Amino acid sequence: MKTTIIGMGLIGGSFAMSLRDNGLADHITGVDTSSKNLDTALKLGLIDKVSELESAVEGADLIVLSAPVDVIPTLAVKVLNRVNDNQVVMDMGSVKTELAEMISQHPKRGRFVATHPMWGTEYSGPESAVKGAFKGRNVVICDKEKSDANALETVGTIYSTIGMPILYMSSEEQDLHSAYISHISHITAYALALTVLEKERENNHIFDLASSGFESTVRLAKSSPSMWVPIFMNNKYNVLDVLREHIHQLQIFRKMLENDDEKGLIAAVEKANTIKKIIK
Amino acid sequence: MKTTIIGMGLIGGSFAMSLRDNGLADHITGVDTSSKNLDTALKLGLIDKVSELESAVEGADLIVLSAPVDVIPTLAVKVLNRVNDNQVVMDMGSVKTELAEMISQHPKRGRFVATHPMWGTEYSGPESAVKGAFKGRNVVICDKEKSDANALETVGTIYSTIGMPILYMSSEEQDLHSAYISHISHITAYALALTVLEKERENNHIFDLASSGFESTVRLAKSSPSMWVPIFMNNKYNVLDVLREHIHQLQIFRKMLENDDEKGLIAAVEKANTIKKIIK
Repeated sequence: MKTTIIGMGLIGGSFAMSLRDNGLADHITGVDTSSKNLDTALKLGLIDKVSELESAVEGADLIVLSAPVDVIPTLAVKVLNRVNDNQVVMDMGSVKTELAEMISQHPKRGRFVATHPMWGTEYSGPESAVKGAFKGRNVVICDKEKSDANALETVGTIYSTIGMPILYMSSEEQDLHSAYISHISHITAYALALTVLEKERENNHIFDLASSGFESTVRLAKSSPSMWVPIFMNNKYNVLDVLREHIHQLQIFRKMLENDDEKGLIAAVEKANTIKKIIK
Repeated sequence: MKTTIIGMGLIGGSFAMSLRDNGLADHITGVDTSSKNLDTALKLGLIDKVSELESAVEGADLIVLSAPVDVIPTLAVKVLNRVNDNQVVMDMGSVKTELAEMISQHPKRGRFVATHPMWGTEYSGPESAVKGAFKGRNVVICDKEKSDANALETVGTIYSTIGMPILYMSSEEQDLHSAYISHISHITAYALALTVLEKERENNHIFDLASSGFESTVRLAKSSPSMWVPIFMNNKYNVLDVLREHIHQLQIFRKMLENDDEKGLIAAVEKANTIKKIIK
């Protein structure tokens, strides 16, 4: 399959690897606004050549959008403007509602498949691409009834071959779910990093002890603003919803501690422990 | 060395393994209020025999307190009441100020070494003990000037042999630092788990997507109340201090998002990214 990947960062680069390793792409063209990213991707053999958007779309069987989510809706329209009925376009962004609206009336809407593979790391750029990255993780396909059957099948086969179980939901559901199980974790990590960095100004030995618990909670705070700020802003209402609830839960915790409410703290922790049902 | 470990849970069990694997203990006696924990520890070969507190202290070269932190100060006094000048007592708890005060005037204070090895997992009980657990992690020794030189040397040699770099600080400093780089991570994880569990009541598919970012941030929410509630309560003022700052940081984040303050969000994330300096 002749493939074009627009957005040659962590996700695009890792996806290029997965496509090649599974024999799904015989020729990959990379498009990016950063020539540094393109150079790195070429050097690492993630892509076979670089190109401008227009020529990269022409003749590709599959066009993958793996740019930041604030760019994807515009890119999607521009790419759909140029495709024929044999080409397939897919995105890999973690927010969908605005994208869904932007392409909803496009005559080529059927060629588009909106996907969100649930994988990432705190690193960015094609140099951080990971071999076998997506395998075993879930992928969400949104609004499948809006995609042509053969486009959906092409994308479904790709993800199945890579080893990703597919979940189907609407764009609205996916944005709500992502706010709760992905976006909020990043905000929490950023805020925790800022909290400790704030304290470090008074006491510069504060990190001497940093333990594995701290590292695992704060790891996501290394994630790049260019990827995450657009996600928060494009999923604003869901993110604010979960952020308000999270602050509320922390305030309850704080009050119990202020009041030496041992029973309340134990009950809260026991309830939080039931997360064991869900994450192994 | 004849060793007695009081508190045969995750920490006591893992420490027993480390002592044995490094040839530091030839006979280990276990003490615990839970006969189930003692049975498990015997069955797993973590300890050689079980005993009551009084007889377990008599004749031991080293007595290790690895019980929850609300129990350690009382245990410390009771054990010091029974030791002679050749025996060494150490604790492994993550809060020290109250312990330090409780034993400050004890005539056998010199036999006690207050330590906090920076290792743990979200699991509990001797069945969760981990081989090679402590290796490569830091350990804090508190108020070293209060311990006899030979007691300090014994404990220092044990930790060095296990492969733990030693940091020295006062009990007050250690409690402040632990609040920032360990205790708050647990509260954040509990609150995040509660936030998502709250949403699950409306939408029971919320966890279908759970990604690795979510798992790493929420992992600590599986940690037991019997260990952690006493830690929060015994380190109340430091924990409240960091919790208030953390809530404040989340509120700033929320306001920026409410106001579509993209520049502010980018600046906050970039600042949070500087945590890279500290955690690899």
